[in-house]
Amino acid sequence: VEEQRKPAIAWDHLLGSLVCDGQPMQLRLMRALSDWIDSGRLPGGVKLPSTRYLATKLGIGRNTALFALSCLVKQGYLVARERSGIYVAETRLRSVAAADPQSPSVMDWQSRFASEPLTFEAEPKQELPAQTFPFQYGQFDVSLFPTSHWRECERAALGVLEIADWGRDMVDGDDCELIEQLRKNVLPHHGIWAQPDEIIVTLGGQQGRYLVARLLAKPGSKVGIENPGMPDMASILRLTGTDICHLQVDVDGAVPSPEMDSCDTVILTAGHQCPTTAVMPLSRRKEILERAQSKDFVVVEDTYEMELLRESGGIPALKSLDTTGRVIYIGSLSKQMAPGLRVGFIVAPPQAIRQLRALRRLMLRHPPGNNQRALAVFIERGYYTAFVGRVAREFGRRAIVLQQASKSWLPDFGWKHRDGTSSFWFEMPRALDSAVLAEAARNRGVLIESGTPFFDDHMVKRNFFRLAVSSVPTEQIEVGIKMLAEIM
Amino acid sequence: VEEQRKPAIAWDHLLGSLVCDGQPMQLRLMRALSDWIDSGRLPGGVKLPSTRYLATKLGIGRNTALFALSCLVKQGYLVARERSGIYVAETRLRSVAAADPQSPSVMDWQSRFASEPLTFEAEPKQELPAQTFPFQYGQFDVSLFPTSHWRECERAALGVLEIADWGRDMVDGDDCELIEQLRKNVLPHHGIWAQPDEIIVTLGGQQGRYLVARLLAKPGSKVGIENPGMPDMASILRLTGTDICHLQVDVDGAVPSPEMDSCDTVILTAGHQCPTTAVMPLSRRKEILERAQSKDFVVVEDTYEMELLRESGGIPALKSLDTTGRVIYIGSLSKQMAPGLRVGFIVAPPQAIRQLRALRRLMLRHPPGNNQRALAVFIERGYYTAFVGRVAREFGRRAIVLQQASKSWLPDFGWKHRDGTSSFWFEMPRALDSAVLAEAARNRGVLIESGTPFFDDHMVKRNFFRLAVSSVPTEQIEVGIKMLAEIM
Repeated sequence: VEEQRKPAIAWDHLLGSLVCDGQPMQLRLMRALSDWIDSGRLPGGVKLPSTRYLATKLGIGRNTALFALSCLVKQGYLVARERSGIYVAETRLRSVAAADPQSPSVMDWQSRFASEPLTFEAEPKQELPAQTFPFQYGQFDVSLFPTSHWRECERAALGVLEIADWGRDMVDGDDCELIEQLRKNVLPHHGIWAQPDEIIVTLGGQQGRYLVARLLAKPGSKVGIENPGMPDMASILRLTGTDICHLQVDVDGAVPSPEMDSCDTVILTAGHQCPTTAVMPLSRRKEILERAQSKDFVVVEDTYEMELLRESGGIPALKSLDTTGRVIYIGSLSKQMAPGLRVGFIVAPPQAIRQLRALRRLMLRHPPGNNQRALAVFIERGYYTAFVGRVAREFGRRAIVLQQASKSWLPDFGWKHRDGTSSFWFEMPRALDSAVLAEAARNRGVLIESGTPFFDDHMVKRNFFRLAVSSVPTEQIEVGIKMLAEIM
Repeated sequence: VEEQRKPAIAWDHLLGSLVCDGQPMQLRLMRALSDWIDSGRLPGGVKLPSTRYLATKLGIGRNTALFALSCLVKQGYLVARERSGIYVAETRLRSVAAADPQSPSVMDWQSRFASEPLTFEAEPKQELPAQTFPFQYGQFDVSLFPTSHWRECERAALGVLEIADWGRDMVDGDDCELIEQLRKNVLPHHGIWAQPDEIIVTLGGQQGRYLVARLLAKPGSKVGIENPGMPDMASILRLTGTDICHLQVDVDGAVPSPEMDSCDTVILTAGHQCPTTAVMPLSRRKEILERAQSKDFVVVEDTYEMELLRESGGIPALKSLDTTGRVIYIGSLSKQMAPGLRVGFIVAPPQAIRQLRALRRLMLRHPPGNNQRALAVFIERGYYTAFVGRVAREFGRRAIVLQQASKSWLPDFGWKHRDGTSSFWFEMPRALDSAVLAEAARNRGVLIESGTPFFDDHMVKRNFFRLAVSSVPTEQIEVGIKMLAEIM
């Protein structure tokens, strides 16, 4: 590998900033470098320019420059690597909190933002105990990742002919092979036969939600979302200035209602309601589609746990029951495989897909080609089907353990388990506050989610929480639940 | 690999739709399958359910079901694969134009869209000649792709510990190793020392543009863009409802002016102006930053050809000259390496980065972790620096050939070549129309870009076009230019 031949021009910037304060140049250089290293502005591991370069730029002798650097090496600011050069030390403790940016902003940024300043609940800062019981939803369990099969498929996508195909700028297009695999081997398991022009690939389910919101939500239109429901969906809709209508949820999912009828668009998690895991019965699905037709609203079906749904089989998706082309289906392939891969898709009528493609083009052009191609190979070789089955069986085993532990240790709590879900929605006695419980549990390493953020602000219920089995090892489940009971 | 055990539930949907029309069931099944295959609704390569399953679902004997399928095999609709099953034939000609969706939409979608229906100039449909001369900008040249080094880095990112790290849902975070590599080995070459909280990774430069537009552009604010400038930037801004101000461009790039002063945000391609390739001199950069400070506007610096800029060295980025923290820098790493990988970033003050992270979280959570990690390794091992140098030298050689050919064959046209650009902006005599030229050239296989889409509608100049050397092989350049001259 070729060495870089000239120092980065940012060094000119640094050297040019040495203020002439009457001190000798070598002292000024030492002070500037140590200040910049202390403040974190100079990253650890950066290579310093040659003494020849420093000497020329600063108008000093090379020996003088070398002396300054040697002093800083002795002080631990710099390290000399043999036959390579002098580098900023990696190990030095940085006062990151007091990090000193190159040009601190004196502007009032908030007043310039197009949307309200967005804040999300941050993870508490305090350290977790050494042993944790991760019952949060949607966490990644690396022990389930199909490492060798995925490697094989990434390798297959790295053939020269393959690279020539996915490496180009597809502008607003998708990998044809992935679209074919979705049509043949994924969507039919959800009851959907789709044409290629009815599918667009997204960066996970989240981009699907954002795209659909930008497609349909606008000031003056009304969008219905479930309450409780996904907090991110509500946050996305607030960006668009649309009216948000909160729809009631019962044990069968979203309830058909005059409020629902008054919406232009209704966003539903019919497969497993998020967060209650309620499965909408066929009769209610049909009723909602009939209302959608008679009241002329669009139905967005968000299947956030698609692969597990597939294994639980059973009730056809709203999309598959739709006869008037008014259902938009949001799916995700990445959830259990590796959230970090980020692949999802939308199925919708061609008119809507065309506009979604144009929006996606402006937003980011297209999802990375290499991941699309590797995933197409992964599905084609049958690894996807096998993987989905394995995950579903593993989660099923964990769910049984969680149910038994809950019966033993949390007998006063209400919950119901549905096939093909990785999570449980618990109702506590009304006097208890799930946020307080979650914090107390966290201090003992039991990581659960308070249910409060899932409710609309105006109708908050504080006595719900969610437990998921997607990343907690089977043998930790009972111990974790027992600890949770003790914490109560 | 485990075989899938039960047929996809979409088969129930299909079989359930067999209308009872007095014909025997086996004829109805044959007609439905052949219709669905003809219309493209059933994708080629899909496996049919077992005859046992068909017989049960349809209430017929297994032999009857087998007979129906056998007839369709003879007719070429289906193929039987030994010891595997019966599949929809891949080879059958489909009437894709008349594709028949599962549920044709009867809705007026356009009236529901939150933005105007977006259309982009489609590629002409007619076939290209066998030999083409690809002078379009930003196309991918696979011969330059660092295949073996990139493979090595993807493999490195597929270690089990690595997967555990990038595979998780980073919510609104980025790969720390990529951020470190950008700080150490990429940004300093553009004069920028940035703290980790001043950087966010994006899906290529395009997502950087979209994010910054969503951060700052809103109804009632005014955003200045260059004219001519990037058509996509204008399209993105139109989504936000902001006022767009078109800024004049001369041989030194965007011209400081009272119009510029009246903007809240100004988006500039100072490094190489897009599409004219003008390089903004240091004095003008300083003047614009002074105006930004006194008139209190934000400067967005879009470096769409970052790696080439690095090699041409010279003038510090606006971001590196900024002393009041009012410059937002949009960079892209993917352009020359493989547009399909889609990695870019934004450098901005921490207050702005926090809001950008929140917006990106709602938009798609985070860019895929595996690509971020592989790219971090690619930079760390020095491959990135070497690759950038190689590309710059190759483009430099091609540019010399293009200059010589242009002098010989297009002597009446105005153009100027700048170091570190991969494109040339040609001015033709006023009577000529570049769209007409581009279409005529295309018919002979010479692919050039008309300059017209780069101009604001109200001030269209039709006598400009752009030629790029980023994907045309050196030996084709002179022949291509000669053909272009003949076409005139």
